[in-house]
Amino acid sequence: MTIVTKDITLQTEGNCDITDITALIEEEIASSGVSDGTIAIFICGSTAAVTTIEFEPGLIHDLKETWNRLVPQNILYQHDQAWGDGNGHAHVRAALLGPSLVIPFVSRKLTLGTWQQIVCVDFDNRHRSRKIVLQIMGE
Amino acid sequence: MTIVTKDITLQTEGNCDITDITALIEEEIASSGVSDGTIAIFICGSTAAVTTIEFEPGLIHDLKETWNRLVPQNILYQHDQAWGDGNGHAHVRAALLGPSLVIPFVSRKLTLGTWQQIVCVDFDNRHRSRKIVLQIMGE
Amino acid sequence: MTIVTKDITLQTEGNCDITDITALIEEEIASSGVSDGTIAIFICGSTAAVTTIEFEPGLIHDLKETWNRLVPQNILYQHDQAWGDGNGHAHVRAALLGPSLVIPFVSRKLTLGTWQQIVCVDFDNRHRSRKIVLQIMGE
Repeated sequence: MTIVTKDITLQTEGNCDITDITALIEEEIASSGVSDGTIAIFICGSTAAVTTIEFEPGLIHDLKETWNRLVPQNILYQHDQAWGDGNGHAHVRAALLGPSLVIPFVSRKLTLGTWQQIVCVDFDNRHRSRKIVLQIMGE
Repeated sequence: MTIVTKDITLQTEGNCDITDITALIEEEIASSGVSDGTIAIFICGSTAAVTTIEFEPGLIHDLKETWNRLVPQNILYQHDQAWGDGNGHAHVRAALLGPSLVIPFVSRKLTLGTWQQIVCVDFDNRHRSRKIVLQIMGE
Repeated sequence: MTIVTKDITLQTEGNCDITDITALIEEEIASSGVSDGTIAIFICGSTAAVTTIEFEPGLIHDLKETWNRLVPQNILYQHDQAWGDGNGHAHVRAALLGPSLVIPFVSRKLTLGTWQQIVCVDFDNRHRSRKIVLQIMGE
């Protein structure tokens, strides 16, 4: 059993910018030397999150619209009143969606469905450089 | 430390069909030969998700009603405009609820609360055959 | 590779009481003797959940308001009709937010962002004693 920890860095646009990170993660598994195991995917930061979705333009739009409807930017947040960052909505959305995912892989291949991609969703109100920690454990 | 990967297959009805998979997961842990460790539960596919809930008819109804209210089926999704699948709401709900869970077990027993069951929620708009990957790691 | 399982117990107030558990988790990692690995954080029970957020009073208020808006306490839940517990909203919120988190650590340090704390959110309608299971795996 071995453990490999890697970081990947993304440049994101913010405002619910959704980035497909599946290929980056597949590369890290391929180069890890681990055949069967689990990858933990964790986003550092409190205004972005990770999940899986079918990465196609319609759903990217639909997911953004859903967040605009459920946790709008233009209502009052005490975070914004106190700190003036204007990203209270981004913090709340990220807490709801969650910072971590765990995905098994077998024979160096992620066990994703055919139309299932791993995405980072950046909710912040400006462009950001994002660090995602990948930890591969297996044999 | 050993690692065991298993698949389970469910026949689901779709339309927020909620299946209690706790007993299936307990069986896999019992037969794995691993006493203490973590099980990663991952659903393959982008229109279903996993979580825990008290599995009783009232809450099954309440969870469905919540999704109908928060991410309704009958609003416009660009996914449906583009692909005609009619399951845009299912993709968005699954992305919000998430595809993975991690649960520790000790002496072959899951560390669940008394009224806490592991469920697969199938949001698709039709019946499906669902694969869930279980990866047990421990000693 | 070693595995260490610990429980922590919290006294919570319920009603969306949010507790910062970062320091407790850092202590368990420090005393585990494991340098690099993953910690699985799992809440036992179906009316509380775990996530990460910037733990400051504004956002604590904003997260509570969001739950009050999205999954209100004062609408009809069949769970409450059947069992009279009055905590149907708490079960639904906990299922949506989720019971588990996985966070990598490197050189005994969690890979959290600067403004990112690990929190337990207790949605129940009364004070509770909460058990959180921590499982550390690494070397």
